[in-house]
Amino acid sequence: MIARGIMLGPDQPVILHLLDIEQKIDDLNLLRMELLGSAFPLLKLVATIDNVEACKDVNIAIMIAGYSRKDGLDTKDLMSKNVSIYKDVASVLEQHAAADCKVLVVTNPANTNALILKDFAPSIPEKNITCLTRLDHNIALSLIAQKVKVPVSDVKNVIIWGNHDAKQYPDINHATVTIKNEEKPVKECISDDHWLKTEFITNVQQRGAAFNRSQKAKKCALSCASAACDHIHDWVYGTPKGKWVSMGVYSDGSYGIPKDIIYSFPVKCEKGKWSIVQGLTIDALTREKMDVAAKDLKEEISMAKSCLD
Amino acid sequence: MIARGIMLGPDQPVILHLLDIEQKIDDLNLLRMELLGSAFPLLKLVATIDNVEACKDVNIAIMIAGYSRKDGLDTKDLMSKNVSIYKDVASVLEQHAAADCKVLVVTNPANTNALILKDFAPSIPEKNITCLTRLDHNIALSLIAQKVKVPVSDVKNVIIWGNHDAKQYPDINHATVTIKNEEKPVKECISDDHWLKTEFITNVQQRGAAFNRSQKAKKCALSCASAACDHIHDWVYGTPKGKWVSMGVYSDGSYGIPKDIIYSFPVKCEKGKWSIVQGLTIDALTREKMDVAAKDLKEEISMAKSCLD
Repeated sequence: MIARGIMLGPDQPVILHLLDIEQKIDDLNLLRMELLGSAFPLLKLVATIDNVEACKDVNIAIMIAGYSRKDGLDTKDLMSKNVSIYKDVASVLEQHAAADCKVLVVTNPANTNALILKDFAPSIPEKNITCLTRLDHNIALSLIAQKVKVPVSDVKNVIIWGNHDAKQYPDINHATVTIKNEEKPVKECISDDHWLKTEFITNVQQRGAAFNRSQKAKKCALSCASAACDHIHDWVYGTPKGKWVSMGVYSDGSYGIPKDIIYSFPVKCEKGKWSIVQGLTIDALTREKMDVAAKDLKEEISMAKSCLD
Repeated sequence: MIARGIMLGPDQPVILHLLDIEQKIDDLNLLRMELLGSAFPLLKLVATIDNVEACKDVNIAIMIAGYSRKDGLDTKDLMSKNVSIYKDVASVLEQHAAADCKVLVVTNPANTNALILKDFAPSIPEKNITCLTRLDHNIALSLIAQKVKVPVSDVKNVIIWGNHDAKQYPDINHATVTIKNEEKPVKECISDDHWLKTEFITNVQQRGAAFNRSQKAKKCALSCASAACDHIHDWVYGTPKGKWVSMGVYSDGSYGIPKDIIYSFPVKCEKGKWSIVQGLTIDALTREKMDVAAKDLKEEISMAKSCLD
């Protein structure tokens, strides 16, 4: 998708830096052959196992490295291995990436990995370090579209609060569906309130997990890659008027969320910068779930930091 | 790529019909979830194990069904199983597809599968039944670009003669490289004639096979899918002025190739129709290789037909 111009537009040449570890060099070469063999007109390619070469002068860093549950690790071991990866890459990005490098962390625990990266790359502006919740955002849009039986492009402004994991809260209080050129609140279009409060929420929260559990372990590679492209595209080129998206960003204290965590908010983007959508009314249930997500992230960060000691 | 508008353009809605067999229904559902979860704005989706539902009113049919070498079959068994798939699908397409349906056969033996499909779908115009050699074409462009050290978009007009398999002949006699705004014959840009006559040719011929042999057995899924998109895109929207591509098409006897086979030629496309590029000079070596490919295809067709008896 990057090589085809989906992320940065059909006329924007891209130099794709692919980084993998030495043990995966055969996979990396296969991918390199595949990309070259596709004769993508926009693409130049750097495929390397050297962190410095990979990070040199990059304008956009998409972090998909990391161990996953399927590697058979418990939560603490998984955290420990991933945190050390993000710490290492942070220092290389700090030294070698372009000064205005935009960072998107995809691998779970994405919010915490991004926070560790921020801590170890202090010269990268904190506004430039984000994590992916667009996948959850897209899944929420898609589930509503299927329920109301409209094209997904007619649904907008769901919010993913919190983290890119099961403790997130998908909020549809401000979401709308366009039916016959009229924007209506989702709550007016879906009479099945029970579905909205139960199945919808668990489906969004658990979708990634469901893929992970599947025998094929494809780990939602397509929808995840697509969401990463959407995240970067909108960050760079802006969100359409009247529409917001969800991004995990460094909290500025908006909506009473603690300032020192990376948390998913509704954001609008313009000229390469995001800003949190302000002034939304938060009902009691959402408030409670937002705070649960923040508390969960705080605990995750404590665990991550203990892994670094 | 289809759902993202790469094949039919960024503003063209698509109804993607996905067909698989009953034993693969879990994979099909997973793919369906993935596509829906990506919230592609252009996409409507039909995922089914019913041939008729899958073929109903389709304007474009991309045939990727079939057994492959990795299923541990010998040539004859592989042929037998694939031929019967293409015979069955042909009759369903014949009855249910749109009258102007364009067909692209991807699975090897692609030329012969396409010919079987043509024989059992006589109401589909023979001009509408093609097979993929764009992958080989793209790989040839890419190898030349890497050798000359130019972007792949600066190389054009290679030809894949014959079939989508090791007996094809990649011909660079008419190919050019644009260097400093000047189009130069590839032969002037690459002094290493030995490379052109040996490594280049076997590399193009064997690339698919190399992927098939690799332990990961990813079977060049990305470059193949990308080539299929290129094939359909150019067929529907036309090839750029001064540029041709390779497509496996029903021979009209051009260049002395027998009339009753599907064979890869250089083609230009305009308004949804392809035509074979005429009047190219063919040197003795190329002539010989073109005839070998035709003879090989004839034998393959005999074997396929014997499987149908």
